[in-house]
Amino acid sequence: MSGRVVVLTGGVGGAKLAQGLAAILPPRDLTAVVNTGDDFRHFGLAISPDIDTLLYTLSGRSDTLRGWGRAGETWNFMDAARSLSAPDWFALGDGDLALHVLRTDRLACGEPLSSIIADFAGSWGIATKILPMSDDPVATRLETDAGVLDFQDYFVARRCEPRVQTIRFDGAAAARPAPGVIKAIGDARTSAIVIAPSNPYLSIDPILAVPGVAEALRAAKAPVVAVSPIVGGAAVKGPTAKLMAEMGMVVSPAAVAAHYGNLVDAWLVDGRDAGSDFTAPHALADTLMPTLDDKVRVAKAALALAGSLA
Amino acid sequence: MSGRVVVLTGGVGGAKLAQGLAAILPPRDLTAVVNTGDDFRHFGLAISPDIDTLLYTLSGRSDTLRGWGRAGETWNFMDAARSLSAPDWFALGDGDLALHVLRTDRLACGEPLSSIIADFAGSWGIATKILPMSDDPVATRLETDAGVLDFQDYFVARRCEPRVQTIRFDGAAAARPAPGVIKAIGDARTSAIVIAPSNPYLSIDPILAVPGVAEALRAAKAPVVAVSPIVGGAAVKGPTAKLMAEMGMVVSPAAVAAHYGNLVDAWLVDGRDAGSDFTAPHALADTLMPTLDDKVRVAKAALALAGSLA
Repeated sequence: MSGRVVVLTGGVGGAKLAQGLAAILPPRDLTAVVNTGDDFRHFGLAISPDIDTLLYTLSGRSDTLRGWGRAGETWNFMDAARSLSAPDWFALGDGDLALHVLRTDRLACGEPLSSIIADFAGSWGIATKILPMSDDPVATRLETDAGVLDFQDYFVARRCEPRVQTIRFDGAAAARPAPGVIKAIGDARTSAIVIAPSNPYLSIDPILAVPGVAEALRAAKAPVVAVSPIVGGAAVKGPTAKLMAEMGMVVSPAAVAAHYGNLVDAWLVDGRDAGSDFTAPHALADTLMPTLDDKVRVAKAALALAGSLA
Repeated sequence: MSGRVVVLTGGVGGAKLAQGLAAILPPRDLTAVVNTGDDFRHFGLAISPDIDTLLYTLSGRSDTLRGWGRAGETWNFMDAARSLSAPDWFALGDGDLALHVLRTDRLACGEPLSSIIADFAGSWGIATKILPMSDDPVATRLETDAGVLDFQDYFVARRCEPRVQTIRFDGAAAARPAPGVIKAIGDARTSAIVIAPSNPYLSIDPILAVPGVAEALRAAKAPVVAVSPIVGGAAVKGPTAKLMAEMGMVVSPAAVAAHYGNLVDAWLVDGRDAGSDFTAPHALADTLMPTLDDKVRVAKAALALAGSLA
């Protein structure tokens, strides 16, 4: 198929699919709309975990062995901060700090996040257009049996251990989509919109909570295809399955599909989940992406599925 | 001699003398009043070069081979910042960043610099009381043949190359001495006040420009002794001699003594400058401090000189 592609993505799993899409599309034909609900301040520094994961992945800088952060990272800042009695529950690598320090400085000067990220991506030779879902602050917070928790407190400090009752996106109602988001989704040259296999509740829902985004997806001429984040009845990584169980759902692609409802036109479901109660339009594939070949394969399958709907 | 000691100090040379004094005095009997006129913001981070030099020196963390910064430093932040097109004229080490990031965060929360530095010193087991000259911002600026320059622009970016006409300390008139500064100078238990062989014009003058400090020195019961920053008609390090020549002075201990005037009761002058036109009360010593033994030797000579005046 030809045409531009928009991918909605969160963290590591989504970045893998984005890398696959970037590998097969002409330069500049991919736009990634990225979750910023996990963004937070630590030591006063503005940290955008999902955007940075994508910057590292698409520039070939990600640590694929550890599964997060920057390859060849060192930790002298953390060692020194610890020696100064600073809390060390959130690890900031020495090289990683450059993104946070420069971003914080430029945000303080009034520059919007989207402009800063475009500049970072340009410096690193990334052809994919990386758009934060919004330049306005949106904070994912979890109502749990341990109280209302900030996302990173839940995700990193408490290792997703508290039981989650509700997830909310503080600030979302007043947030505006970042420049280019609505335009990319509705663009006549856009031939496919892909929802990455990121956590639906923590990574994709914040994007959909920004007023105008879900409406634009429903109005888009391009088909919306989603890659299931559930493989063999479990999550590949992270708390998706645990969250679903805690919120009273069966851990299955069908439950995720029901959650997105009519927003998604067709699903790419893992073959391990074939024969389940999945009734929405779908294709089957091996959706695990350990290698670049796998990422390309899943990206092609997602675009083929979109093409079949066109 | 017994009693507490106050040392007025700037960068590396002053830190050497402070280290010598700390080595021979009982814990907590040394107070260092430190120049903050060089403090500045870089990438939005609050940097206090002279205070940090003292923190590194007194905690045994300084890079004595390179002559500045932190031993075992790494530079992954700078490499990453450079890859993001950030200016690299001021080098921030990975470990060094911990001081700047944590300081910036705490200043932004309203904590005064003096309190933050006391906490850092405590974390690193430093018994010397390290006091910034002021918690209020004072900025050393140089009027030069290349225009009015911020200190770090002159000192680092332009390597002290412009010819200096005048040095000013913006903000000094409104600055208050940091808590403890005036008290330490005037304390009945203080038996000596030492002006370190730091640059008189760039490191000591800013301290003296804070209203109340010079007056407290003149009123102090303890003798004020100064260690000459000129050795053999030249500066040991840095732009002292160049500045003196540009401002029309002969590069000699006598010219420095004339600059401080009656603020200083006696001078420790290097033997290489004996027989010069030095008429103020003084003792002679080898004032170079390459080793810890030398630092201790010069510290003892300075205190013996103060003791001889008591």
